[in-house]
Amino acid sequence: MKYSQLFTKTIKNVPADETARNAQLLIQAGYIYKDMAGVYAFLPLGLKVLENIKQIVREEMNSIGGQELLMTSLQNKTTWGKTDRWNSKNVDVWFKTELQNGTELGLAWSHEEQITTMMNQYLKSHRDLPAYVYQFQNKLRNELRAKSGIMRCREFLMKDLYSYSRDEKQHQEFYDKVSESYQRIFKRVGLGDSTYFTFASGGAFTQFSHEFQTLCEAGEDTIYVDKKKKLAINKEVLSDEVLKQLGVNKADLEEYKAAEVGNIFSFGTAKSEQIGLFFTDAEGSQKPVVLGSYGIGITRLMGVLVEKFADEHGIIWPDNIAPFKVYLASVGVDKKVLEAAEKLYEELQKAGVEVLFDDRDIRPGEKFADADLIGLPCRLVVSEKSLAGGGVEFKKRTSDNTEIISLDKAIKRLAE
Amino acid sequence: MKYSQLFTKTIKNVPADETARNAQLLIQAGYIYKDMAGVYAFLPLGLKVLENIKQIVREEMNSIGGQELLMTSLQNKTTWGKTDRWNSKNVDVWFKTELQNGTELGLAWSHEEQITTMMNQYLKSHRDLPAYVYQFQNKLRNELRAKSGIMRCREFLMKDLYSYSRDEKQHQEFYDKVSESYQRIFKRVGLGDSTYFTFASGGAFTQFSHEFQTLCEAGEDTIYVDKKKKLAINKEVLSDEVLKQLGVNKADLEEYKAAEVGNIFSFGTAKSEQIGLFFTDAEGSQKPVVLGSYGIGITRLMGVLVEKFADEHGIIWPDNIAPFKVYLASVGVDKKVLEAAEKLYEELQKAGVEVLFDDRDIRPGEKFADADLIGLPCRLVVSEKSLAGGGVEFKKRTSDNTEIISLDKAIKRLAE
Repeated sequence: MKYSQLFTKTIKNVPADETARNAQLLIQAGYIYKDMAGVYAFLPLGLKVLENIKQIVREEMNSIGGQELLMTSLQNKTTWGKTDRWNSKNVDVWFKTELQNGTELGLAWSHEEQITTMMNQYLKSHRDLPAYVYQFQNKLRNELRAKSGIMRCREFLMKDLYSYSRDEKQHQEFYDKVSESYQRIFKRVGLGDSTYFTFASGGAFTQFSHEFQTLCEAGEDTIYVDKKKKLAINKEVLSDEVLKQLGVNKADLEEYKAAEVGNIFSFGTAKSEQIGLFFTDAEGSQKPVVLGSYGIGITRLMGVLVEKFADEHGIIWPDNIAPFKVYLASVGVDKKVLEAAEKLYEELQKAGVEVLFDDRDIRPGEKFADADLIGLPCRLVVSEKSLAGGGVEFKKRTSDNTEIISLDKAIKRLAE
Repeated sequence: MKYSQLFTKTIKNVPADETARNAQLLIQAGYIYKDMAGVYAFLPLGLKVLENIKQIVREEMNSIGGQELLMTSLQNKTTWGKTDRWNSKNVDVWFKTELQNGTELGLAWSHEEQITTMMNQYLKSHRDLPAYVYQFQNKLRNELRAKSGIMRCREFLMKDLYSYSRDEKQHQEFYDKVSESYQRIFKRVGLGDSTYFTFASGGAFTQFSHEFQTLCEAGEDTIYVDKKKKLAINKEVLSDEVLKQLGVNKADLEEYKAAEVGNIFSFGTAKSEQIGLFFTDAEGSQKPVVLGSYGIGITRLMGVLVEKFADEHGIIWPDNIAPFKVYLASVGVDKKVLEAAEKLYEELQKAGVEVLFDDRDIRPGEKFADADLIGLPCRLVVSEKSLAGGGVEFKKRTSDNTEIISLDKAIKRLAE
C-alpha cells in the first residue's frame, strides 16, 4: 500500500487523555482511534494487525477441531437467568438495554450461557460429543474504570472456545490440547519466551483455572514464576499449601507483573445442569455434558505486544503480526530514485512481500520517524546515495545497523 | 469437511415460530440459530456463506480505493447530538444503555456520525481528499417488528462505505464508481439479472437516493421496473413528474415486489457542517467536506439469495456463495465404496475444491434430502452401483439429471 493513499496520519504529540503506553503509541501511529474511554476503533493498519492475530489463532483452533461460528451481541434474560448471572449483583459488567415493548436485553460480556443453551438443539446423544466451537466476537463490558488502553476495554475482541464432552476424561484430553495450542499461538505471535502457564483461582468445580500470563510491566496481575519448571502461580492463589501441592519451592519463585493473555477453564457439569444440557449415553441414561471454556483477548494481546516490544522511538511488531513486512521509503524527488523505489515496490509485491511504500513528498527525517513509530520489521530506503552505493539501504527495526544491498538481494532476502 | 464432524444437524420440521422462508430453511439446514425474534447466530455453514459474501464485497471495495476499518458498537451521545439524531423522535431504532456512572450510550444502528467525527482528526487539507473508508460491522436496530428472518434483523451485519470528497464533482465521480462496483457485486453473488438500480427518496440535499433492488416476492418494497432502460423507480417516489424527469414511459413499467440489497446516498455538505468537518482548500479557505454513504446489508443479501433460489427441497446457493462447492456422499458401508469416497474427498481437496463429505452411517435417502436442503451446487455420490458403472454419480443441485463419470473426470470438472 502507498502511504499517500492511507487516510491516517501519525500524530506527533502524545494524546493528553491517554495514560497507557500501548494506546498512546497506537493512536500516534494511526492504528486505533479513541472514541471514549475504553472504546477504540481499529483503523486500516490496526485492523490488519488484528486480522493477523486472528488468523494465527484461527489456524490453531481449527487444528484441534474447533468449528468457527458467530453468536450475537444481544442476549436474552431467560438464558442468563438459568445460571443466575443476569443479576448485576453476580455480574457487575453488564450493559443492559431493552426492546421497544420493554423487554429487557443484555449485551454480551461473554457467550457461555448463549452457546450452551443453543447446544441443546444439537447435542443429544453421546455420538454428538465431543463438540468444539469458537468465535471471534465483540464483548461489551461495563468496566468501572478503563485506563489500560486496549488491554482493558469496554468493547473488545475476544476469541472464545467452548468444549462439550461426554465425561471428565474426554474433557481433560481436550483441555490439554487447548493448552498446547495456546503455547503455539503465543509462540507464533512472538510471546513464547515470556508467557507462562499459570495456576489461578478455579470455580465451584475445580481448584484451579489456568491462565497464560505474559511478563509485562503494564500488566494488572502479579505472578510468581518458576522458570525451571516453566510455570507460574497467580498471587491470588499463592499459599504454602498450593506450593506443596504443585511441588514448587518458594525459593525458585520470582515475582513479576504480568498480563493475562489467555485462560482456560473447566466448568464440570454444573453449568450444563443449570441450563439443562443433557445427553443420552450409550446405555440410554441422561447425563449432563462436561463444559470447558477457553479465551484469548485478541485486542488485549495486541496491546501487550506493543507494551512488550516498543522502544523510545515507537512500536516494534513481531514479524508474524506486523501489518506490513516492509516500510519502503524514497528519499528526495530525483526521478531515478522515484522510479527505482516504485519498481522495488512493485517487485516486492509480486514476490508476495507486503509493503507500506512511503511515497510522500516530505523530509527524510519525518519518514524515518514514522517508520520507527509504525514499527514494521524492516525498513528499505531508496536514495541517490543508496543507488550510487549499488542499491537500497536495508535496516531492521530492532537494529541500528544499516547496509546497502542490491535491489535483487533485497527482494530475495525479504521474500524468504 | 466431514459431516460427521459438524456439530449442526438438519431439522426435519419447519420451525413453528418462524414465518419467513429464508429463516425456516436456514435454521432447518443448520446455517443459523434463532436466539430471539430478529436475533440470529451464524453457525459454521452460515458463517462460511457470510464470509464468501464479505470477500466479494471486500474485493470490490478495495478495487475502488476503499480502506477497511472497524468502528465500535458503543456510541456516544455528543457525536449524535450534533446532527440531532440522538433523539429517539428522530431515530426510532436506537438501543440505548449506560455506563456505571450513568452516562448514556447508544448502540450503533449506523456509523456515519462516528466516522465523520473521527475524520476531523485526519482530513484537514485538500491534499487529504478524497478518502474512502468502509467496514463490515454489526448494526443494532430496535425494530418494532422482526418477522422477515435474516432480511430484517435487530442485529445484523452490514458493509458501510463512506466517501469524503472536496467538491460535488469529485463526489459524483466516486458515487458513480460505487454504483458500478455494486453492479459487479450483485452479479458476482448471482443476482445480476434481477437487481435494478432504483430511484428512491433522497434527503435534504438530493432529490433521489439510489437503491439496488432485487426482484423478490419476500421483499418489503414495491418498485416499478423499466426493463429496457434497466432501471426502476421505488413506489415511494413514483409520480408523473418523476417519470417525465427520468424520461420513462408509464407504459414501460412493470410492478414488482423487491428487496433492497444496497443503497447509495449523497449527504452533500450538510452533515459535515453539522459535525464540523472542514478542510483547507488550495486557496487557504475552509470548506465543508462532501459526504456520501453506501450500504450493503450482508445478512439481508444472504436471506435474499435463499428466497430467490430455493425450491421445494431446500436452499440453492449460487456457485460463488456456497459454503462448499460439493456435497459428497457415500452410500452404504461397503469397504470399497468407503475407500473410494475417502480418496475422492482427499483428491478434491488437494485440487482446491471445497467439499462437505457426508460420511455418516445413515440411509441414502436422508443424505440426499440433506444435500438438497443444504443446497451446495454439486452432489457426488459414491455407491457400489456408481463404482460398477465406472465412477461416481454427478448431479447439479439445479438439475434432476444424474450421470456416472470417472473419479478423475469428476475432479477435473470440479477443479475448473
